[in-house]
Amino acid sequence: MEKWSPRTDLAIESALIAEQQNGGKVEGITIKEEEKEETKVTTVEISEEAERITGRKAGHYVTIESTDLRGSDSSRHAAISRVVAEEIRLFIEGAGLSKDASCLIAGLGNDLITPDSLGPRVTDRLIVTNHLFKLHPEHVQTGYRPVSAISPGVMGMTGIETGDILLGLIEREKPDFLIVIDALASRSIERLNATIQMTDAGIQPGAGIGNRRKEISRHTAGIPVIAIGIPTVIDASTVTRDAVEMVMKHLQEKSGREDDSWKRSFLGNIGLLDENEKHQLINDVLTPAGLNMIVTPKEADLFIHGAAAIVSSALNEALHDRPPEETRSFFAG
Amino acid sequence: MEKWSPRTDLAIESALIAEQQNGGKVEGITIKEEEKEETKVTTVEISEEAERITGRKAGHYVTIESTDLRGSDSSRHAAISRVVAEEIRLFIEGAGLSKDASCLIAGLGNDLITPDSLGPRVTDRLIVTNHLFKLHPEHVQTGYRPVSAISPGVMGMTGIETGDILLGLIEREKPDFLIVIDALASRSIERLNATIQMTDAGIQPGAGIGNRRKEISRHTAGIPVIAIGIPTVIDASTVTRDAVEMVMKHLQEKSGREDDSWKRSFLGNIGLLDENEKHQLINDVLTPAGLNMIVTPKEADLFIHGAAAIVSSALNEALHDRPPEETRSFFAG
Amino acid sequence: MEKWSPRTDLAIESALIAEQQNGGKVEGITIKEEEKEETKVTTVEISEEAERITGRKAGHYVTIESTDLRGSDSSRHAAISRVVAEEIRLFIEGAGLSKDASCLIAGLGNDLITPDSLGPRVTDRLIVTNHLFKLHPEHVQTGYRPVSAISPGVMGMTGIETGDILLGLIEREKPDFLIVIDALASRSIERLNATIQMTDAGIQPGAGIGNRRKEISRHTAGIPVIAIGIPTVIDASTVTRDAVEMVMKHLQEKSGREDDSWKRSFLGNIGLLDENEKHQLINDVLTPAGLNMIVTPKEADLFIHGAAAIVSSALNEALHDRPPEETRSFFAG
Amino acid sequence: MEKWSPRTDLAIESALIAEQQNGGKVEGITIKEEEKEETKVTTVEISEEAERITGRKAGHYVTIESTDLRGSDSSRHAAISRVVAEEIRLFIEGAGLSKDASCLIAGLGNDLITPDSLGPRVTDRLIVTNHLFKLHPEHVQTGYRPVSAISPGVMGMTGIETGDILLGLIEREKPDFLIVIDALASRSIERLNATIQMTDAGIQPGAGIGNRRKEISRHTAGIPVIAIGIPTVIDASTVTRDAVEMVMKHLQEKSGREDDSWKRSFLGNIGLLDENEKHQLINDVLTPAGLNMIVTPKEADLFIHGAAAIVSSALNEALHDRPPEETRSFFAG
Repeated sequence: MEKWSPRTDLAIESALIAEQQNGGKVEGITIKEEEKEETKVTTVEISEEAERITGRKAGHYVTIESTDLRGSDSSRHAAISRVVAEEIRLFIEGAGLSKDASCLIAGLGNDLITPDSLGPRVTDRLIVTNHLFKLHPEHVQTGYRPVSAISPGVMGMTGIETGDILLGLIEREKPDFLIVIDALASRSIERLNATIQMTDAGIQPGAGIGNRRKEISRHTAGIPVIAIGIPTVIDASTVTRDAVEMVMKHLQEKSGREDDSWKRSFLGNIGLLDENEKHQLINDVLTPAGLNMIVTPKEADLFIHGAAAIVSSALNEALHDRPPEETRSFFAG
Repeated sequence: MEKWSPRTDLAIESALIAEQQNGGKVEGITIKEEEKEETKVTTVEISEEAERITGRKAGHYVTIESTDLRGSDSSRHAAISRVVAEEIRLFIEGAGLSKDASCLIAGLGNDLITPDSLGPRVTDRLIVTNHLFKLHPEHVQTGYRPVSAISPGVMGMTGIETGDILLGLIEREKPDFLIVIDALASRSIERLNATIQMTDAGIQPGAGIGNRRKEISRHTAGIPVIAIGIPTVIDASTVTRDAVEMVMKHLQEKSGREDDSWKRSFLGNIGLLDENEKHQLINDVLTPAGLNMIVTPKEADLFIHGAAAIVSSALNEALHDRPPEETRSFFAG
Repeated sequence: MEKWSPRTDLAIESALIAEQQNGGKVEGITIKEEEKEETKVTTVEISEEAERITGRKAGHYVTIESTDLRGSDSSRHAAISRVVAEEIRLFIEGAGLSKDASCLIAGLGNDLITPDSLGPRVTDRLIVTNHLFKLHPEHVQTGYRPVSAISPGVMGMTGIETGDILLGLIEREKPDFLIVIDALASRSIERLNATIQMTDAGIQPGAGIGNRRKEISRHTAGIPVIAIGIPTVIDASTVTRDAVEMVMKHLQEKSGREDDSWKRSFLGNIGLLDENEKHQLINDVLTPAGLNMIVTPKEADLFIHGAAAIVSSALNEALHDRPPEETRSFFAG
Repeated sequence: MEKWSPRTDLAIESALIAEQQNGGKVEGITIKEEEKEETKVTTVEISEEAERITGRKAGHYVTIESTDLRGSDSSRHAAISRVVAEEIRLFIEGAGLSKDASCLIAGLGNDLITPDSLGPRVTDRLIVTNHLFKLHPEHVQTGYRPVSAISPGVMGMTGIETGDILLGLIEREKPDFLIVIDALASRSIERLNATIQMTDAGIQPGAGIGNRRKEISRHTAGIPVIAIGIPTVIDASTVTRDAVEMVMKHLQEKSGREDDSWKRSFLGNIGLLDENEKHQLINDVLTPAGLNMIVTPKEADLFIHGAAAIVSSALNEALHDRPPEETRSFFAG
């Protein structure tokens, strides 16, 4: 029987789960922590051998963690934005791209559904220059590169696979690299709306909260792909399962402490409830109505707004070599 | 120790929980089911004696249940809207109000937070006539009554108790009755976005998802109050607790069936986990980040939109005695 | 010197101007009026010879006019929607397309700018089925055809010509026909937010309010194109010019009536102000700030909302052969 | 006959018109210009004697002018915000209010109508503390004052005069002073979305674009009132009239230069078109549809967003004596 795994789009969570299940370091997974501008930056390298264990594509994953993402302290938002900009720049350089390389940015997700609207809200705030390079190259100031941006929508609204829209556009417009922005699922409440993940591994089928099916990656697009995501939801079943497991663990510990005589039978009993049964029980609680239940903070709308401002500012700063006040989306729409 | 109760703003859920805990009918609670336009309509009467047991104020509660609230079938939406309009009319008549009695409608909640935005979205679509009666009475056609409407905001945004804003306005404007619209919390996923509750018992402190503190009722306002609400969220702790309890119940049943010898000790063990501990454990899972976690369907934004249209149409139809095409908010903003 | 013409995207206005300038019927322009469901429906045929005179591409233009578009009478909105649906069906049949022909709908315009947001707001409400035909053909009920929809954004936000995004998508997805929705400019306040134009002549460069440059038509797309538009703005210079001309005409008439002796010299004087000078003067008044000034009713936001509901309902009804309650976007998001 | 005056809510425009009509300085009007942070700041004092001439209430009017308000340069936005904050502080001190004086902020206007939505968008971003002072005074850090905020809506949506809602609230809550935010009408395109007016003279009947009728001022409210407004629209008739007058002036000049013989009769002729006739003619062009036509830049939605951020930042900074990063609404919702 396949082992149930909590659903997460964060490599850092997948890596930690893998280490936990393995009881220590796992071959092919390297985790490195730093601090930049008082913000925790974790780099996870996943080798091709570790793909199977982690369920994540091989690649370089950078995770920026700060609960200040949820707050409204403008100086902390600006600091986090600078850290994100620096990491984006490292990804661009790491892919061997020049300062003139043209970039297409795709804001994935559904702008009518709050926790899925990160991508479209980021593209709304970008400095877009591609058409100026084509139509009025004489007016473009030095320091800018050609940037285009699209919010392709979600398959349920367009009737077309998001991957197909993007690949068609890449074929026609031939940008030098692609950046995709998307809302992610996390498995822990701590990381919700408090984490920014960047990777060169692309976006995988079934990832995100929009049920995409086609991989969008260097492999399929033929150009370097940088994916930036922020977890905005947790599956209700993940939270519930965590609670159930904590309660059972607590029961075991408690029974062990106080009444050792029947411990064995009780543990055997827990064993009677196999993964499938546990899964079935939790589904019975959560899906009577056939709905796609998520757990999210009540203030999700506000968090998304702040996160979109931070990511768009970082992109504007990283992609164009201009004075900061021109690239920051400070008060922008 | 006080017994933990799942949080709900629905009288029908409180009544069912009370009956379940009592093992049958409870004195002072009357439940009556009907079907109107293929929609289930349940009337719950709670007497003053039953207030303590149910945790709900004495009064008349009408609950309309239909999963069509979540869909997009326009004829079903229109049918539900007619049922709601009829029930509102019955509440108005029941309060002894005439066809000319003036009405203030208050849309409670925060329009920037999707699951809390029902109230403001309803007031956006109402037919408002109070100023016409005051300024151009000669132009008001027969059949209309004076209706005014306000979205007072939430205390976290205004710095003022919502109850104070409303009571001040009532004192100054002296409407004959008040209708309040609010998003509610339910304890079951089945009823989420699929239930409309109407009551003459007012809105109680701590109810809704906006943490109001002052009761808004006939008692405090001095005029009849009709409250209309739709559950749009479930506390994450309620869902989790349900799951934990189902799993434990399943364990008990299973152990009973298969290994009777240690049943007693196991049951004793479950007993070891008292209400406080259970509550603590679930909190440990859900609130590490100090967030107000809710469970909601991913499509919540769309459901709220449809629900606001249905409730505003029903209010327009119930309050004014005009041809239906003038009062339906069919395509309105 | 080229003659100045008021800017309009409505063929009916171009045709009327041409007839007025010609002092009667113009070869190659046929105008036919009907009434359907108490709504005025005008059909204008423009032949290839009349292209130059009207400044409009040859084709079939249907204009539906009703000030009820601005109101909130739901039964009138439904009636207009039925008329639009019927005309769309005639265009589809006229293009020789079968009931199974697949359709791509493109909602042009910028959803962040109210008077330019008609297109995106229509696509938000469409019944989209193309992915179901591809992924779960066994679940698609009879009566539906494959429909996909996209809001490609505007060049200023994407950096890519809208035409390029659409042509790339058409090449890849190969729909059988294309429907484009767009906000238009009118030259008369009477027709603003009170007119729906449908045509098989495509969308021309410079049309709309988004300054598109590439023609989107059967000629460029290789498949039949149906364009649906509603005028939501008037150029401020058009309104101003109308006023200036009315005042000068009035002056002439007046001087003629009251003081015949200097009439000749005055008329000569008006002649001194040639088209270029008039244009220059009006620009001096309107564009000191380099802004793109439009004239619009204050309530534009509400009108757009109603118009998007009517057009999306009509599309859902015309494209799918299903019971009306399934295709009407009555209360939809 | 009453002289027609272009509609404006800006004292600076009223003062300039009065001086122009008077052919120089007017008794009771003082105009002083300064520059702060590269921004033009004009102070207009209107005495009670000059009320009749200017049509503006006696008081102190500060006007900040910068076309950077329309742009997206974050450092310029921050600079303008600091200038506004300083002026607000001067108004507060000028009214003899202490650092602890409690403040109610009212964001007037209709948040569903873009050019009228400035007020509600400002209140959405304020730091509100009044409830904390009442409920948890021990948690309020030093430097904050009690601030509450409300968006009372517009009479057409609420059925209640905005003034009545505010006066009722002031009576009940007893703030020490009131700040009202509102969208204004300007008479010149140059000042549109490029001017911030602050005054202690209150808001007058018929001012703004929402047709308020009751004066909101120290006189009616019984407490100091500071009004902050930004012009977001021009009446279409004002723009048109300007154009007509420029054309006629041009005609006169031209005829003068080139054909002196009939000059006299022509000038006489212009005289034949009196104010009433001119007004009537312009109305004939603009109001056939009974609509409230405004002239606005197409990008109005974006300007409003930036303006709301600047004003709310300035209010947060001026009202609370806290480090700037806590009061700036940098990235806030």
